[in-house]
Parts: sequence; structure tokens; C-alpha cells
Amino acid sequence: MTRTASPRVLPNIVNRWSPRAFDGSAVPQEDLDVIFEAAGLAASAYNYQPWRFAYAHRGDANFDAFLSALVPFNQTWAKDAGVLVFAVSDEFMRSDRGDNPNHSHSFDTGAAWANAALQALALGFHTHGMTGVDFEKAAEVLNLPEGYRVEMAFVIGRQGDKSQLPDMLREREIVSDRKPVSEIAFAGPFKD
Amino acid sequence: MTRTASPRVLPNIVNRWSPRAFDGSAVPQEDLDVIFEAAGLAASAYNYQPWRFAYAHRGDANFDAFLSALVPFNQTWAKDAGVLVFAVSDEFMRSDRGDNPNHSHSFDTGAAWANAALQALALGFHTHGMTGVDFEKAAEVLNLPEGYRVEMAFVIGRQGDKSQLPDMLREREIVSDRKPVSEIAFAGPFKD
Repeated sequence: MTRTASPRVLPNIVNRWSPRAFDGSAVPQEDLDVIFEAAGLAASAYNYQPWRFAYAHRGDANFDAFLSALVPFNQTWAKDAGVLVFAVSDEFMRSDRGDNPNHSHSFDTGAAWANAALQALALGFHTHGMTGVDFEKAAEVLNLPEGYRVEMAFVIGRQGDKSQLPDMLREREIVSDRKPVSEIAFAGPFKD
Repeated sequence: MTRTASPRVLPNIVNRWSPRAFDGSAVPQEDLDVIFEAAGLAASAYNYQPWRFAYAHRGDANFDAFLSALVPFNQTWAKDAGVLVFAVSDEFMRSDRGDNPNHSHSFDTGAAWANAALQALALGFHTHGMTGVDFEKAAEVLNLPEGYRVEMAFVIGRQGDKSQLPDMLREREIVSDRKPVSEIAFAGPFKD
């Protein structure tokens, strides 16, 4: 599966995509730590680093509960990934002088996720992000305090064979296209 | 300037940082296009690609207006970057069957920005993101329609000598630290 892109685009950026077939193997904790280290090196407003990642390894005490907070469709395939992660952001910049809303808490956490996805690929893993999440249930399962937002969930794992997927998903196991640059970037005022 | 990180973290992720000294040189349009192509290859919910980038090259017809939408402090140094960009997200998933709020419009746009920052570095440029923006003025300058959100601004350019900065900023021209992985990622339920 290949994607058409300028040869000048970083290979990890071009080659990252979101399969649904995972082989059930574990992600070693030391690899996971490198992935989160990469995430934490993203830029953030005032270097506040609003991202948090709550994870469960496949088969550990929390995995089933984490999985149950995905929509049923995503549970069917995410169960075979090595790790299931919820990306959470801190909605406030907190200090002794009071808490202020952080304009970019979601945005910055998305930047951290992008780093994580690229780093995972560099270590031989694939990722697949999901907003197909029961967000209320996720907050419950995570025992999330007020002032934090569940942004999305993602899995990390080794790619499996797509023959393991049901027909409908097997057909969707493809690298997706992107809008042309001319539709997302433009000189001067806004064009929608 | 160096940062302590695992040798397994991707070099572009480790080496990306946010200087304020830029040398005033232009960013060729073909390089800018590659940066936005990389941005557009980020993951997004349902592949909706909610990101938009409105930019001005230093010295073009829009640059001064774009610059005026930053807070005065950021104007003082951002004026020397080659390109000034506003990252905007589409708050809705729009279709013929109606528009639905997109849970991850900011988050996904943050992922695109992360790709852009890494790609820029790979091409020899530096970036610096800002939420020190007059968001109301930015929406005005961009002539932004309802339903789109200005997430942040960032500059792209070639690094300049920090001696060009005023004393106060020269001292801040350093690579920032990050929280340890143990503070941002944890197995199981949430810890703040």
C-alpha cells in the first residue's frame, strides 16, 4: 500500500496510516516509553504540556474496561492491538495564582499524538486513532477529574494480516487519500 | 543547544524547538508546499481533514495585516520569519445530510501542525507556534466564516543569530525541558 507524495516528505509521515488488523502481540514497555517520550517533545503553548496518556496493555487488569469505552464497532478490531491508549488533555493552565482556560489544550495534545504515531511507526508499530468512543463511559473508566477532556483513543500494535478481518473491514484496510495542498493551504485571507 | 532524550527518539522530534531569532530570509513556495503536504498527511477522525492554513510571506500584501493579529510581544520577533501562518480548524463535519460537530477538530489540526513542524525542520527551517494571538482580530483579518476556529499562529523561517534579539528574549532563546514520561503517561485509570 503506497501513497502518492512528494519525495521530500519525511518517510515516516508518508508511510503512517491506520490499519485495523493487528496481530495480538505485546508492545514492550520500553518501546511504549519511547513513544510517549516522543509525544512529550511536541510543542505546546507556554510549554504547558497539557497532554496525558492513560494506557492498558492487552491482557492486563485494565484492558477490558478500557476496550468497553470504545463504540462496539471499534471494539471488534481494537481488541487485537498490543496497547489501548486514551489521549486526555488538561483544559486549564493551573498555577498557584489560579487556573486559566488553555486555548490550545486539544490542539497541543493532537500534536503530541502525531509525534507518538510517527515514533511508533519508526519502532515498527502501527497506530489507529478513534473518536468512535463512548466519551462518558471513558471518563468513568478513567476516573477522570473535572477539567480534563478525553480527546480520542488510539491503539498501538504490530500489523496483522487483513484476512483476519471481517469482509466489510477487509475492504477498508487501505491507505486513505488526502486533500490536495491547494484545498488546505492558501495565501492570504480564508477560503473554505 | 541539545535536549536529553532516548537515542531511539526520531532525530527530527528531538531536535525540533522554537527559536525566536529568524534571519528574515524567504521560504520558497515549493518548500512551503511540502510542509503543508506533510501537515495534510496527519491522521484525522473519519479522514475529515479539518485543518486549514492561511499564510503570508514576509513582505507580501497580507503580511503586515497577519502580523497585526499577533499580540504585540510576538510581533516584535515574528516579523523576521519568512512565513506567518494561522492554523484554522473546521468545527463541523459537513455533508449534504447536515453538519455535525467534530469532537476532534482542534486535536486533529494540532496533529497536522506537528507534522508541519517536523517537516519544516527536515527542510532546514525552524518553526515557532503561538497562542499569543488576538483571536478576534485574527478572525477579522482572515475574514473567517462562522464555524471555523483560529487555533494558533506559527512562523516558519531560517534561524537567525540570537544577538539580534533584545536582552530579555536572548536569555529565553533556549531549548525547553519536558515533563518526565512518568508524569504524562500511566497504566490504568487517570492520575493528574
